[in-house]
Amino acid sequence: MEQQFIAWLRERLPAHPLLRLGPGDDAAVLRMAGVDECALTVDLLTEGVDFLLAEVDPRRVGRKALAVNLSDLAAMAARPLAAVLAVALPRQGGRRLALQLYEGLLPLAEKYDLAIAGGDTNSWDGPLVITATLLGQITARGPLLRRGAAAGDRIIVTGAFGGSILGRQFDFEPRIHEALLLNDRYELHAGMDVSDGLAIDLSRLVRESAVGAIVQTDRVPIHEDARRLARQDNDGRTPGEHALGDGEDFELLLAVPPGEARRMLDQQPLEVPLTDIGQFIAQPGLWQREADGPLQPLTPSGWEHTFT
Amino acid sequence: MEQQFIAWLRERLPAHPLLRLGPGDDAAVLRMAGVDECALTVDLLTEGVDFLLAEVDPRRVGRKALAVNLSDLAAMAARPLAAVLAVALPRQGGRRLALQLYEGLLPLAEKYDLAIAGGDTNSWDGPLVITATLLGQITARGPLLRRGAAAGDRIIVTGAFGGSILGRQFDFEPRIHEALLLNDRYELHAGMDVSDGLAIDLSRLVRESAVGAIVQTDRVPIHEDARRLARQDNDGRTPGEHALGDGEDFELLLAVPPGEARRMLDQQPLEVPLTDIGQFIAQPGLWQREADGPLQPLTPSGWEHTFT
Repeated sequence: MEQQFIAWLRERLPAHPLLRLGPGDDAAVLRMAGVDECALTVDLLTEGVDFLLAEVDPRRVGRKALAVNLSDLAAMAARPLAAVLAVALPRQGGRRLALQLYEGLLPLAEKYDLAIAGGDTNSWDGPLVITATLLGQITARGPLLRRGAAAGDRIIVTGAFGGSILGRQFDFEPRIHEALLLNDRYELHAGMDVSDGLAIDLSRLVRESAVGAIVQTDRVPIHEDARRLARQDNDGRTPGEHALGDGEDFELLLAVPPGEARRMLDQQPLEVPLTDIGQFIAQPGLWQREADGPLQPLTPSGWEHTFT
Repeated sequence: MEQQFIAWLRERLPAHPLLRLGPGDDAAVLRMAGVDECALTVDLLTEGVDFLLAEVDPRRVGRKALAVNLSDLAAMAARPLAAVLAVALPRQGGRRLALQLYEGLLPLAEKYDLAIAGGDTNSWDGPLVITATLLGQITARGPLLRRGAAAGDRIIVTGAFGGSILGRQFDFEPRIHEALLLNDRYELHAGMDVSDGLAIDLSRLVRESAVGAIVQTDRVPIHEDARRLARQDNDGRTPGEHALGDGEDFELLLAVPPGEARRMLDQQPLEVPLTDIGQFIAQPGLWQREADGPLQPLTPSGWEHTFT
């Protein structure tokens, strides 16, 4: 990291009990005694794919770089510990951009008690790239995995889906508190966060669990953003299609045994609603049903990085 | 990470006792019981600044992405534990490139018993970007920091310097074993790895330690690559200048109390030579002296990312 930038950052970082040594040396040093299991995750965001600096304040980009990783920790029911960041900055305006990225991410780090441990700041003749790597603590209840869903389990989701491109893709709240509370109080068989799209992410969960699933499409909570998007001219997709396919909702998708699911839905222990949107079945594959209508195949739509 | 790529990677990853859960879920899960302190470091490499794919096999780029981070762990005297990688791949040819990057880094990971825990694989319409984040275990002897050098300490280096651009910048051996052995057997006051250049990195060590240093330029071990580079037409720099300024040597730079330094130099406990290149002094600043000649200021030359 560049010296001036390190000095700027050191002034702004609150003391954190985990940090024996913060930014400025060859590596950070973290106190890990008492941490038996860690979750480790990384995400990379690029200009042009994940954001357009012409359209979005760099502070929201910085915040998002942390938030998507916090959402991955939530998906494992892990408590945030520490983060390191790496950025490739365009040479022109890079310094200002670096400060703005950090101004956006520091408040979120503080909110979730995440230690900013260090980073790597590079310049180049290319567009902005930012990656964050997060370390989280697995609780005594163990990690929440994608495998473990059983036939008969209910499909439970937090919040509502679709239309995140209208702004929620940057300003969403990672479901850290929700995941920790649910994993602590209820028996969860499997879980993940919805980043690429409800249907495609569900297809990954059923594959890892070697089961199938039926989604009751009439029960999928549709976000107001999905309705707004569908109302736009030439959109050509229904709000329900947006909910199933848009992605970047960063809500939790859980497999919960039926009795636990009933208890959870009765208690509604979160500030955000919990909804039952269908069930897992023994037969592999993804199906959808509208109310009491016939079963139809559900083709996973959503975002996938493609390369050849 | 893309599903097909995860499947390919899972087949190639050796089992590792640290990994409760490897690539493919929302995060990796690491067994950390018994690890009291961790080093955490990240480095980002970009096409055009750190390598040119037109000139270098992508396997060497993948290897380097790990090796520079292993060198940072060596700089802290930390034992490698686990890594996560994030790549932004050009859309055209991205799949082949991803496989080659991993083919280059997997053998190095195995050599240093480093668990490849996961990663993020993205495609975009830009040049290749690769980042690696490494977790290391601080030993019972504690971390090796940049601060701690005292007036009177000797400046000790491993190996030889300069001309790494001729190929060593990719194929260097991170000084993991050397750092662990030295930190275990000798009292080291401070240390770091030389990545940006011997003089500029020494200037950082003296600043963090609030001391100064005198480099005996005639004692700096000059790599054969530095001599080769200086012989090239129009180079205009001496081998010694290359040694002090080129960077990417990834050797260790240590502050060692005089008695320990003598013992270390007598014993030469490494396969690579240890050399005394000068001493730390109370007066801040960097000085150089050729044999018994006069003291001259040493202007730190070396690589710094610049942005405006």
